[in-house]
Amino acid sequence: MTDETKPQSAEERLIARYFKPLATHPGAFGLSDDAAAIAPPAGCDLVLKTDGVIAGVHFFPDDPPDTVARKVLRMNLSDLAAKGATPLGFLLAVALPQGTEEAWLAGFARGLGEDAELFGCPLLGGDTDHTPGPISVSVAAFGAVPHGKMVRRAGATAGDRVVVTGTIGDAALGLALRRDSSTAKRWELTRDQQDHLTSRYRVPQPRNAIAEILRAHASAAMDVSDGLAGDLAKLCRASGVAAEIACADVPLSDAARMALAKEPVLIETIVSGGDDYEILATVPPGKVAAFKQQASGAGVNVTEIGKVSAGRGEARFLGPDGKPLALAHASYSHF
Amino acid sequence: MTDETKPQSAEERLIARYFKPLATHPGAFGLSDDAAAIAPPAGCDLVLKTDGVIAGVHFFPDDPPDTVARKVLRMNLSDLAAKGATPLGFLLAVALPQGTEEAWLAGFARGLGEDAELFGCPLLGGDTDHTPGPISVSVAAFGAVPHGKMVRRAGATAGDRVVVTGTIGDAALGLALRRDSSTAKRWELTRDQQDHLTSRYRVPQPRNAIAEILRAHASAAMDVSDGLAGDLAKLCRASGVAAEIACADVPLSDAARMALAKEPVLIETIVSGGDDYEILATVPPGKVAAFKQQASGAGVNVTEIGKVSAGRGEARFLGPDGKPLALAHASYSHF
Repeated sequence: MTDETKPQSAEERLIARYFKPLATHPGAFGLSDDAAAIAPPAGCDLVLKTDGVIAGVHFFPDDPPDTVARKVLRMNLSDLAAKGATPLGFLLAVALPQGTEEAWLAGFARGLGEDAELFGCPLLGGDTDHTPGPISVSVAAFGAVPHGKMVRRAGATAGDRVVVTGTIGDAALGLALRRDSSTAKRWELTRDQQDHLTSRYRVPQPRNAIAEILRAHASAAMDVSDGLAGDLAKLCRASGVAAEIACADVPLSDAARMALAKEPVLIETIVSGGDDYEILATVPPGKVAAFKQQASGAGVNVTEIGKVSAGRGEARFLGPDGKPLALAHASYSHF
Repeated sequence: MTDETKPQSAEERLIARYFKPLATHPGAFGLSDDAAAIAPPAGCDLVLKTDGVIAGVHFFPDDPPDTVARKVLRMNLSDLAAKGATPLGFLLAVALPQGTEEAWLAGFARGLGEDAELFGCPLLGGDTDHTPGPISVSVAAFGAVPHGKMVRRAGATAGDRVVVTGTIGDAALGLALRRDSSTAKRWELTRDQQDHLTSRYRVPQPRNAIAEILRAHASAAMDVSDGLAGDLAKLCRASGVAAEIACADVPLSDAARMALAKEPVLIETIVSGGDDYEILATVPPGKVAAFKQQASGAGVNVTEIGKVSAGRGEARFLGPDGKPLALAHASYSHF
């Protein structure tokens, strides 16, 4: 992604107009060089992550373009948060079909710029191409943690408590609403409740506010992107432990609670649907109260949902009858 | 990109089989965590770059998959080289159509792994998705330079000499051969010469061997990816200078020289076609001899092709008659 004093090509003009204003970090050189240069904070490790979205796979082609930008950036910010890292910046790769309207790009860049500012994660560089395929956006995000202090998936031990931030299942229900609007009526949702679920699908709320608190308290953590059940199983496998969750303790929004009351089978969608972008963590029992209190002070609700025990990767979810749910698919896969 | 002891999904199986063996850096955690963590070398800036390829746009769908992997990694390595940076590692984003044969992925991973090893640039993490579009691969590469020492596009001053590494135009001629095999006959190329041009298009030779030498001698540099003429103009605009190149001094391979002898109009393809992935640099006159000698010692041929003068971004190419070429397109654009 380059820009010169006199933009020469259509690509250069678009970059100069929409992306150069976002490249506020001095090391981005106003997108006028081949690469960015940043001085990493002394004594820190770099935390590196890439994740992306494709139209028709991860978002709907008619989703507002600013929400597409927010989602792809926030997906990556959510991983930095779960690893205890402070954002430093990101690189952007965008592939656009010929004939993509400039209004789409304008909305995309606006959402991207607002979120880059909001989360203190500036655009450092990028790559723009035309594609015969659908709109595709990939972000590579960089953060910093004190040396050796990245919060790992491995680290949970028997006795630790399992906690999650925010509420679970909203995005999966929002996706179901987007796919079939008749479900809103069946679930007897108000307009506000529908909007809540849809917006949780479109624009996740990464928990970067508690990255440092997480480093201080969690024995292991990851973000919930592919469904709570599947992601907890991944954490348990990486840590060599088991975990048991009471579904009744999984935090739900009013909208999700309403839908679940109408259709109890939705518990499966809630605990195994994707796109939550909340943080799943394990915390030694003596630290749970302090973690919850400090997170709450940072504006993030943390709920204890279960317990870690000895095991080999089993993640059990107990239903209202106290018996384990048999989940058809523990996690959502785009692949 | 994740892997667990018991891979659960098709994506996890493919990652475990093909990409985990490439994640040799301890900070990649064997792709078993959400993000990578690396300790950047003390006193260094990070140099960050992203570039990618799309089937049917940047490579032919029937190109050997190992060459696709090599090309996309080397495109990014070439930028690190031109900025004087030592590679630290890379993130990979791959979007594959449903039904992509496993043999394709196996070849891709083999080429990627061999080049990661060859250039000391390990896979740190990634993202794999299915796409309704063509195969798309994006790399984000990271390198290190001593603090403040990234070689910039801006920095050339009047009197500096313009130099390039290797030979120019091979890839653009190789692309022309791939598009229309009858050209080989018209240009009277041997089989070896055809293979040379085609392989230069498919697999560039990034000049990472001279990154440190470049830092010590160049006033400005960039890699030649969009055509020598257009890229030199970019460097001149960023530096606020002009440059004049004698086409006769532009280094050519035997194959390119043969083709040009048959069709003198190919000089335009040679100086404005893309995909060279050589380094274009400006060097103060007193440092040219040492630069050439040290680069040669590192196995890289450097040729002086012109001179920087006062100006405002003009890059002139003088033809055999001593008059400036009128280039229809100074650079190749995929956009």
